Amino acid sequence: MVKINSNYLSLKDSYLFSTIAKKVKAYKEKNPDKRVISLGIGDVVLPLSEPVINSLKTGVEEMAKKDSFKGYGPEQGYDFLREGIRGYYSEFGVQLDEKSIFISDGAKSDLGNLLDIFSKDNIVLIPDPVYPVYVDTNIMDGRKIEYMNCNAENNYLPLPDFNVKGDIIYLCSPNNPTGAAYNREQLEKWVQYAKEIGAIILFDAAYEAFISSPEIPRSIYEIEGAKECAIEVCSLSKTAGFTGMRCGYTIVPLELECEGVKLNKLWLRRQTTKFNGVSYVVQKAASGVFSKEGREKVKEVIDYYKENAKIISKVFDELGISYTGGVNSPYIWIECPNKMSSWEFFDFLLTEANVVGTPGEGFGENGEGRFRFSCFGDREDIEEASQRVFKALNDLK
Amino acid sequence: MVKINSNYLSLKDSYLFSTIAKKVKAYKEKNPDKRVISLGIGDVVLPLSEPVINSLKTGVEEMAKKDSFKGYGPEQGYDFLREGIRGYYSEFGVQLDEKSIFISDGAKSDLGNLLDIFSKDNIVLIPDPVYPVYVDTNIMDGRKIEYMNCNAENNYLPLPDFNVKGDIIYLCSPNNPTGAAYNREQLEKWVQYAKEIGAIILFDAAYEAFISSPEIPRSIYEIEGAKECAIEVCSLSKTAGFTGMRCGYTIVPLELECEGVKLNKLWLRRQTTKFNGVSYVVQKAASGVFSKEGREKVKEVIDYYKENAKIISKVFDELGISYTGGVNSPYIWIECPNKMSSWEFFDFLLTEANVVGTPGEGFGENGEGRFRFSCFGDREDIEEASQRVFKALNDLK
Repeated sequence: MVKINSNYLSLKDSYLFSTIAKKVKAYKEKNPDKRVISLGIGDVVLPLSEPVINSLKTGVEEMAKKDSFKGYGPEQGYDFLREGIRGYYSEFGVQLDEKSIFISDGAKSDLGNLLDIFSKDNIVLIPDPVYPVYVDTNIMDGRKIEYMNCNAENNYLPLPDFNVKGDIIYLCSPNNPTGAAYNREQLEKWVQYAKEIGAIILFDAAYEAFISSPEIPRSIYEIEGAKECAIEVCSLSKTAGFTGMRCGYTIVPLELECEGVKLNKLWLRRQTTKFNGVSYVVQKAASGVFSKEGREKVKEVIDYYKENAKIISKVFDELGISYTGGVNSPYIWIECPNKMSSWEFFDFLLTEANVVGTPGEGFGENGEGRFRFSCFGDREDIEEASQRVFKALNDLK
Repeated sequence: MVKINSNYLSLKDSYLFSTIAKKVKAYKEKNPDKRVISLGIGDVVLPLSEPVINSLKTGVEEMAKKDSFKGYGPEQGYDFLREGIRGYYSEFGVQLDEKSIFISDGAKSDLGNLLDIFSKDNIVLIPDPVYPVYVDTNIMDGRKIEYMNCNAENNYLPLPDFNVKGDIIYLCSPNNPTGAAYNREQLEKWVQYAKEIGAIILFDAAYEAFISSPEIPRSIYEIEGAKECAIEVCSLSKTAGFTGMRCGYTIVPLELECEGVKLNKLWLRRQTTKFNGVSYVVQKAASGVFSKEGREKVKEVIDYYKENAKIISKVFDELGISYTGGVNSPYIWIECPNKMSSWEFFDFLLTEANVVGTPGEGFGENGEGRFRFSCFGDREDIEEASQRVFKALNDLK
């Protein structure tokens, strides 16, 4: 008699975004004259840039002709794209071996799949609040989870604690949802700690393109010794508007060993067995991101979103409301005013400002009383939403 | 201290195609004047058809403009593609609920990932010879594997045996590597058996488009009761030349339950947590496969490959060499002449006919003394290779 993976029964249903959608729908139905603006979901709004589209079109033409048609490609990705990523990293001073770079269909897939190569007996250390995928993928495997508290006291950037240990440590910097980002000195502490206790850091760098402060590393590999204790997962979703295109990459350094086994070799075996690579046309599009023109366009688009973040942040600056993020991150994480719960604040904003955000409680216990704004939106919408939020909160004073 | 998944250490390194590549390379270096033709790897050679390219181009244009740009899509795939697949199945008399269809980046990914929702304590029943992914993905999870023998006595189509049971049963029809395909009556026996012992059938239908004999079902769901005991995995790789595009689909019927839990719900939870859907442009391309023109083009291309298979088969018909496949399948699986081992026959063919095929031993113990030819090639190459193979084997007599 076949048996299911009973760990799945321990998963909580994920209601965050469906509850938001329901509430918004109900409000709109009752108030058809109101224009609701969403700063809720972390999805991009600007189209793919011209260099990306041109590269994609070249790929499409190749697939249409017998002489240039591409069948199965290498599971770990085409060299032209791996080379592009290698060049990108070298710009912030990180030298990668091409063999350490694996092209993926996105950070979400690899963050889950990477766990395949680790024993179920490892303890994982996860920040709270956090991107829910870290927690759920480990529950699915039945791993023990320890949480590290992220709060105002530590600026949402917990540091190593020898009392709460994990074998696999999740770090996300700049962070989703808090927007907080570790500086060099703090990441050095994490690398030193991981090496000391023999842990692996899973470093989620999905928002690295938003970093402009020089003291904030773009990659964990800017830290000496990180190649011996860290895997980095990154994505073009937010960097280049690839949420619908699906392309990312994972770095498993050749230096990285556990129990005398090279993790690069294990991951290669996993990928060649359970994956057949990313679509050729998507990889072609992705290679357009790393061309000279592509990088200039990436910067323009990121600057646009960062300006949005500045506009939203200004509201909280003027009102004296505490927040993290908004500088090296697309997210702004505020303390709900008047000790409102995060869902109370959600309802307040929706009805008083017709603006949608994300209740912090959806990201973990420490998210209660906190609220996330995303800067992915049209400038006009961001400006109008910011004015409305300012007015609603000012009236509340 | 972090621990690896030690099951990975039980995997055998996969040398089949790399050994072939090495041997071919060495031969070519020694014999630069010889033109070697490969009937080895199961990769397509014809480009994407016009309806697919047109649909893909529409998708690319949409991604280039703000108003039509697509960000995150549904993890289980866009409705336009699921609807296309539903229509495709209805043509061979199978009515699917749209919610049972999950779009994937290929059969290989889903065949591995599906195991996530099942307990490690299940015993799996796998044919020998077989597509190595079935075996390796279960070794990675530490599941016990039972093998069912496929041989000339059972026409490479083993039937249920109450002495060798499994909780999860792999069936691949038409089969890779043997080209053998189950008829309706045989599949009815499997469905009946699975229901009787409470097993799940993982039905790999990757080669269904090659079926033209009416007694061979295109889908396991042509068999009554199959929705209560089978998951079907399929791919556009061979159907529409998508090996480099990466798109497939998996059917988890709403009826299917284990221990009172709907597997459809578990799989949806797996996919929404560990996957972010297939690229929008790839799904657009895939939808072109299911248009009226797309289906006509698919048929033309499949007919082209099937004619190739006929040309290769004729060689063995004329020489009186036993084989399976070649009719409802792109593969022809022969008994090596003169009791040669499969690698001996490989070397013989390479040196005497300058033709490359795949030694059966690479697919399992029962593949020893057997050899796989693939029909994916240019007509001219197939004709020339067939003549050369005929001559070499005829001289051997």
